[in-house]
Amino acid sequence: MKREKIKVIVIGGVAMGPKSAARLRRLNPEADITVIERGKILSYAGCGMPYCISGDIEDCKTLNYTPVGVPRDATFFRNVKNVTVLDGTLVRSIDREHKMVDVVNIETGEYGSIPYDKLVLATGGMPIIPPIEGFRLKNVFRLWHPDDAMAIRDAVTSGSVKTAVIIGGGLIGIEMTEALAKRGLHVTVIELLPHILPGLLDEEVALYLTRYVRSQNVDIITGTGVTRILGDDQGNARTVITADGEFPADIVLTNIGVRSNVMLAKDAGLEIGSYGGIVVNDYLETSDPHIYAGGDCVENTVLITGRKAFVPMGSTANKHGRVVANNIMGYREKFGGILGTAVVKVFDYNVGKTGLTERQAREAGFDVVTSLVPATDSPHYYPTHKPLLLKLVADRESRKLLGLQVAGYGDTTKRVDVAATALYFGATVDDLPAIDLGYAPPYATAIDIAAHAANVLRNKMDGTAKAVTPLEVKKKLDDGDEFIWLDVRSPDEYKEVRINDNRVKLVPLGVLRRRLQELPRDKEIITFCKISLRGYEAQTILEGEGFTDVKFMDGGMEAWPYDEMIVRS
Amino acid sequence: MKREKIKVIVIGGVAMGPKSAARLRRLNPEADITVIERGKILSYAGCGMPYCISGDIEDCKTLNYTPVGVPRDATFFRNVKNVTVLDGTLVRSIDREHKMVDVVNIETGEYGSIPYDKLVLATGGMPIIPPIEGFRLKNVFRLWHPDDAMAIRDAVTSGSVKTAVIIGGGLIGIEMTEALAKRGLHVTVIELLPHILPGLLDEEVALYLTRYVRSQNVDIITGTGVTRILGDDQGNARTVITADGEFPADIVLTNIGVRSNVMLAKDAGLEIGSYGGIVVNDYLETSDPHIYAGGDCVENTVLITGRKAFVPMGSTANKHGRVVANNIMGYREKFGGILGTAVVKVFDYNVGKTGLTERQAREAGFDVVTSLVPATDSPHYYPTHKPLLLKLVADRESRKLLGLQVAGYGDTTKRVDVAATALYFGATVDDLPAIDLGYAPPYATAIDIAAHAANVLRNKMDGTAKAVTPLEVKKKLDDGDEFIWLDVRSPDEYKEVRINDNRVKLVPLGVLRRRLQELPRDKEIITFCKISLRGYEAQTILEGEGFTDVKFMDGGMEAWPYDEMIVRS
Repeated sequence: MKREKIKVIVIGGVAMGPKSAARLRRLNPEADITVIERGKILSYAGCGMPYCISGDIEDCKTLNYTPVGVPRDATFFRNVKNVTVLDGTLVRSIDREHKMVDVVNIETGEYGSIPYDKLVLATGGMPIIPPIEGFRLKNVFRLWHPDDAMAIRDAVTSGSVKTAVIIGGGLIGIEMTEALAKRGLHVTVIELLPHILPGLLDEEVALYLTRYVRSQNVDIITGTGVTRILGDDQGNARTVITADGEFPADIVLTNIGVRSNVMLAKDAGLEIGSYGGIVVNDYLETSDPHIYAGGDCVENTVLITGRKAFVPMGSTANKHGRVVANNIMGYREKFGGILGTAVVKVFDYNVGKTGLTERQAREAGFDVVTSLVPATDSPHYYPTHKPLLLKLVADRESRKLLGLQVAGYGDTTKRVDVAATALYFGATVDDLPAIDLGYAPPYATAIDIAAHAANVLRNKMDGTAKAVTPLEVKKKLDDGDEFIWLDVRSPDEYKEVRINDNRVKLVPLGVLRRRLQELPRDKEIITFCKISLRGYEAQTILEGEGFTDVKFMDGGMEAWPYDEMIVRS
Repeated sequence: MKREKIKVIVIGGVAMGPKSAARLRRLNPEADITVIERGKILSYAGCGMPYCISGDIEDCKTLNYTPVGVPRDATFFRNVKNVTVLDGTLVRSIDREHKMVDVVNIETGEYGSIPYDKLVLATGGMPIIPPIEGFRLKNVFRLWHPDDAMAIRDAVTSGSVKTAVIIGGGLIGIEMTEALAKRGLHVTVIELLPHILPGLLDEEVALYLTRYVRSQNVDIITGTGVTRILGDDQGNARTVITADGEFPADIVLTNIGVRSNVMLAKDAGLEIGSYGGIVVNDYLETSDPHIYAGGDCVENTVLITGRKAFVPMGSTANKHGRVVANNIMGYREKFGGILGTAVVKVFDYNVGKTGLTERQAREAGFDVVTSLVPATDSPHYYPTHKPLLLKLVADRESRKLLGLQVAGYGDTTKRVDVAATALYFGATVDDLPAIDLGYAPPYATAIDIAAHAANVLRNKMDGTAKAVTPLEVKKKLDDGDEFIWLDVRSPDEYKEVRINDNRVKLVPLGVLRRRLQELPRDKEIITFCKISLRGYEAQTILEGEGFTDVKFMDGGMEAWPYDEMIVRS
């Protein structure tokens, strides 16, 4: 414990700010710590707001309560933490030369100046305002502040709101889709990019998720920008206009992203990065050694690429808070970087990602190998097993794991966290299957699915398995390529659901060795089954029998994303 | 793909054997592969048997079916894998000089000899027979083979069986406790060691679990050996006799452990280790370079200590199968070792461990630091959050993480797998909180509880937090030590549940700074709250105010394992 009489000012009272203030106090009982917050609500769990709107959380006040029900307000910070909170107070400017911040009390208009020895910027982010005509209409919301959450909650529980359009199918947009649908609204999601959750998922996994979300009576429109929101004569939003059509909306929610709130930092002459965040070093020091910054107002380093990125996350903000406090108090600690990990509940699907998607990995210049594995989270014989689709991305030469994506009913977040831990340590695809993960039938298969997916990658890299991705097959179809599309499932499975294409030929795996003469040896063969475990087996059988151009299709029927080609009986 | 005409014999057809055979085939279509299995049921999921007995799994046959419902029998292996299975066949001996195995068909008594180029020993384990009089009585079962599972299932569904005694509170014993209780039996578990799951948990975590299991109407008797099982005049077990009393039993289940089945290997002169398993090198080669071994018949290296251990696990057996096949086919691969990871469902509690327990770590010579953290798996404001108790073990000097234990209703297995992954890479306690784990309210707190538990450890190691464990406090009580036991919860919490001891003094955290004069400065103070987050806060406040002998009690009320001292209103 240090006993240094040091004055620390923290600007921002939501996540990183209070975290750093509390940690500072625990490290140094003599420090003079002040948190300055523009709003009146401190230290609230902003990530909980969608669940407050959905009604999952009944009492929204709990978002800024401690676990034992004490509100984290100025009194709490004074009595428990001995931290001064100036709420309802705006910082006008930072005087770096004299180490002062100039403040104004929003209510009274009173001005003041407060000196600091060390300053912590926890100014967070701010929502990007969409350049859309009609954005200022009534009933057009964004989810930013607890006041927004309450306004949306009031609107959707009023009884008069039946339809919603959500502009932007990113993380918050998708969480809000579930929240509003749970309130009985018909929701349409409009995403400018080709699929939802574009920062999290590659196309196959996004389409797997999209199929499910549509089954929940949600409309998803992708690859389309909103051009205008039309209102009625009371100034209420009524219709959302896109190039692909018009969508009625009793409320509109815009969610097109967040950027760093760096206005104070910029005015003070601190260095701002190319992604728009404050530049900090590994110790979270800004370009001024007396000023630290963390949370959504800074850029982070992505561990895998070493490149900078802006990825606002409450978890990162909390980590930053502790690291900044430690560094201010002389316990030197580095913050290495992030992995871009994100998890999101989408109705009863659990969706997650860590590291790089295939697209991100290609953009970063990696020679990418992927595996796409539909599986169950626990063994098929155990009654609670649930399906999911898992994708791994790796670098061919170094064999390093680059990322994991997963979606489905099953326990996906465990695999996200395992992969995140592996990525943190620079794991190769050979490490993942060697880890002694927990195995018991209620929780996992004997070879965990993350390990299995890594084994598929290893087989591909080592040349013992040859595969094509569904997207590559789709391209072949679009190009009119000829090949045998060998379905090795049972006749019953085929009858139930099949791909409708004249290239498809059914030869069940159990009789494949006996029916080799039915297959041409001069034509490309692409094998598949339900999940392509038998497809892989078929590929090795055919190759073993001297067929020279055989591949299996990653993920089989389960991962085939083009619903329109599927026939169900 | 290799095309080598090589003869491989695999002895054992349960887990590791079929896995290696299947992998061998995929790597080499020309290999001549034979699996020899004493029984008639192949490739079955033995770990599923408790759930077959409980009724969770209705159709026990699914345990040896593929996910699409095809039985993994000799026909399946012939048709799909092109692998010969000699079932109902016993290997009499291995002739290493001539590279032959001598077999006998159990049904016909016919003898034969089969040559090999490479031999794989997958002979598994065998249950240890307890040295207890009465062990051969009727209605005394062990769970080993699917036939045992069916016999137990028949017994417990007959309607006449009301009480069960389980001898041995290890993994299988605890899984069977749930299984039999679910069938309506009153179960008594008798464990020789001081607490249940002695290989998995330290005392505090085991007692936390014991409290819960007892709440499920199960009797747990520990520190007591069974001396005899008494039968009636029909030869049926009726009473289990211990030094601590007699327990009526309509059925008795013995579960005192497993040892390697190394009889064939020993006869053949292969090296056997001090833990009773076949000695293999990193490539899973035995002392004969033409003979490989894996699964429950070998000893493994524990990654953290580098020492050998016998830890039979289906997951390890499956990993071995792949590694052995790769090595036989010239894809050199090491199997580094295990972490002793185990997870087990106990009614609605999820229990798990990876790495070393505190006891194991002390035995291995580490200077141990621990943290004991009651927490919820997701934020308190999110409705599905569930409690758990987490314990971390680390080495003081190297700061290396050594192990994690966890038990509770919450999502514990995710944290086990994260810790296992971290341990695999030799993580320190400083790594764990730096990992970008997935955060969203349905899944985790912003600082994941595993990271939080690591932060507690770091605070202790860095001297910014001072704590005592519940066991240490118990020892002080037993020694009659004087100290102030400072409960800093609210008066309401205190009224609801409290520790009944005259050392206890209530001063809620929110007023602690105002009531310092009530506390003596010359006496040891041990602070606590519900989970000791406020306890820690109180410790730092008092230390900040110049109190010199203050510690917080790890885990607070939630982790206090001595129920007899607790008063509930």
